[in-house]
Parts: sequence; C-alpha cells; structure tokens
Amino acid sequence: MANDDSWGHWAFAGSEPGPDLNIFSARYDTFIHPVTGKPLRATILETAQWVHVVARTASGDFVLVRQFRFGAREVTLEVPAGLVDTGEDPQAAAARELREETGFVSDAWSDLGAVYQNPASHTSLCHLWLADDAKATGETSPDAGEHLQSLVLSAADVAAAVRDGRIRNPYTVVALSRVLDLRA
Amino acid sequence: MANDDSWGHWAFAGSEPGPDLNIFSARYDTFIHPVTGKPLRATILETAQWVHVVARTASGDFVLVRQFRFGAREVTLEVPAGLVDTGEDPQAAAARELREETGFVSDAWSDLGAVYQNPASHTSLCHLWLADDAKATGETSPDAGEHLQSLVLSAADVAAAVRDGRIRNPYTVVALSRVLDLRA
Repeated sequence: MANDDSWGHWAFAGSEPGPDLNIFSARYDTFIHPVTGKPLRATILETAQWVHVVARTASGDFVLVRQFRFGAREVTLEVPAGLVDTGEDPQAAAARELREETGFVSDAWSDLGAVYQNPASHTSLCHLWLADDAKATGETSPDAGEHLQSLVLSAADVAAAVRDGRIRNPYTVVALSRVLDLRA
Repeated sequence: MANDDSWGHWAFAGSEPGPDLNIFSARYDTFIHPVTGKPLRATILETAQWVHVVARTASGDFVLVRQFRFGAREVTLEVPAGLVDTGEDPQAAAARELREETGFVSDAWSDLGAVYQNPASHTSLCHLWLADDAKATGETSPDAGEHLQSLVLSAADVAAAVRDGRIRNPYTVVALSRVLDLRA
C-alpha cells in the first residue's frame, strides 16, 4: 500500500490552458485509464502553496482568527493561514501570516507535515506548522482584502468548537488534529 | 464568538458568471469591505456537495480506497468519497459511494457532521459519515472515470498513515479525526 508503486497510474496525455481565476489558474490535463485505455480530461486548478498555523501561548491556549469568507458567506473561526509567496519558505510564510493576521510571534516552531489542498483537482500542498510559546505584539497588518479579528481560546474550547461545528474549515481541522484529540 | 453575529460581515454587491470547469462552475461575487467600503471581486467555485465515509468492520478495521488522483498525479490512500447527486440525501450518497467504491455495505450509520469544502472559495459542504459493522459484498461498480482498489487496515495502521504522510487528503483526515486520535 505504498503510495509510490506502479498500481493504478494513469498515463499523462497532454495539458491545455484554461481560464485564469485570480486565486486559481485552471488547466485541463488528459490522462489515460490504466485498464480501459480511454482518455479522461480532468480540470486542474493551480494555486500557490498554502500554510496553516496552530499557535499556542505559553499557557496552552490557541490563537484563532475570525473573518468573513466569500465562499461560505459567513464569518468563520479558523487558524491563521495564507498563501506562501513565490520563493518563500513555508515556515517563513507561517510566521509571516501569524504575525500579519494576529500580531503573535513565536520562536518555537514545529513542522506538522502537509496535506494536499485537494488531490483530485489541485496541484499544491497545504503546509501545517505549530508555533508554541506564541506572544502578542499587538501589531497586525492584514492585506487590503482582509478584515480579521483574532482571539485566544482554551484547548478545550477549540476542541468543542470543532465538535459542535463552529469550526468547519477542513484545513483548520486537519491542523488542529495534529495537536488535539478531536474524536466526536 | 458565535458564527452568526454581525461582526465583520461584508455586504454582497453582485455576481457575474464565469467559466464552466466541469466539476466546478466559476462565478465572481463582489463584496464590500465592512470598514473601508472598497469592493473586492472574489472567485467562487460552485460544486455539488461531497460526502466522505469512515467505514469500519465489526472487528474495528477501516475500509480505505487507493486511486490515482489527477491533481496530485499519484495514487492516494483515502476514505471512500464522492459527489452527492442532485436531490440525493447525503446519507444515501454515503451508502452509495461506499458500495460503489468498495463493495462494503452497512446498516449502522452515524452522522459525523460536515465541513466546508473550502469556505474561502467554495459554496458547498463536505458531509462526513461513519458506517459501522461494514460487510463486504464483493461487488463494486466504479464510475467510468474511476479505477479504484479497496483495502482494509487496522485503526493503528490508519493513524500511522496519517502521521507519516501516506494519507494526505484533507477531507479524509478530517473524517478520520472524528473517530481516531491523530495527534502527532
């Protein structure tokens, strides 16, 4: 069950450009079914890498952000997150996004691994980082397209928010699952 | 910190159609920044609802699927999942996808809640279901665009696969986090 053996691989048979969607760039890749030999034209969305940050204070509380999300059309509760700039190291992006969105900084970073944004349709990864002993500087610098509120919650409150559906961003849940037991 | 209060809500200021991307239909929604009053044009991807299924056998093992994913261009290890058909109940879709992709059936279903596909850009939810006492029928019926292999792993193996990065589909990790302690 290794992910790198040859079972089930479709042959790549070409790529066509698609529309630019601002945060996404679409293209159409054609792959050949490994058994039937039939081609399948898949919509692929190229994006930057993402980073999601679990930030904990010295007392073990979690730094979260609230913001209106345009797809959901509601204010969501999430961990700080953002795009990795071109050429930027994911850990540097994590520290930058944490500082910009919440004003918190940390000198104790741990790599929590990565997940696909969506392996079916997206090419990029979402990198997960843990910032311990996070300290408030009081200075945030959100992007022009952002309007954020940061807040600090206990670990128990965060786990409860996942369980009761107040936290429904999947990448936030994945990041939190690396450090919290989220069983229902 | 309720999600339904009025803090931070951007006013909706119009929508324009965008390209049809097969599995996605793009549109551009404009929202008004609640403080600056400036408009922001957001790319929104409309899709069907999704369903992801954690299926456990009577002995507590997990039923997973392997398949080549066109975005990642590799064979991934995931829980059974798929699109909810128009008018279909999410639980019915969960049972259908489990049966089609793995041949397993269950009479013991539990609702594990839902997460957004991505609240920043997607309008739809991903529904999470648990199927206990799952039994193999030996009969699968994958879609023409699918080539799947199902396998049964112990709970410890599944948790290890999340931790060591063999499982990197975020929706699979979210679904599993409802029933397994996935702390690193």
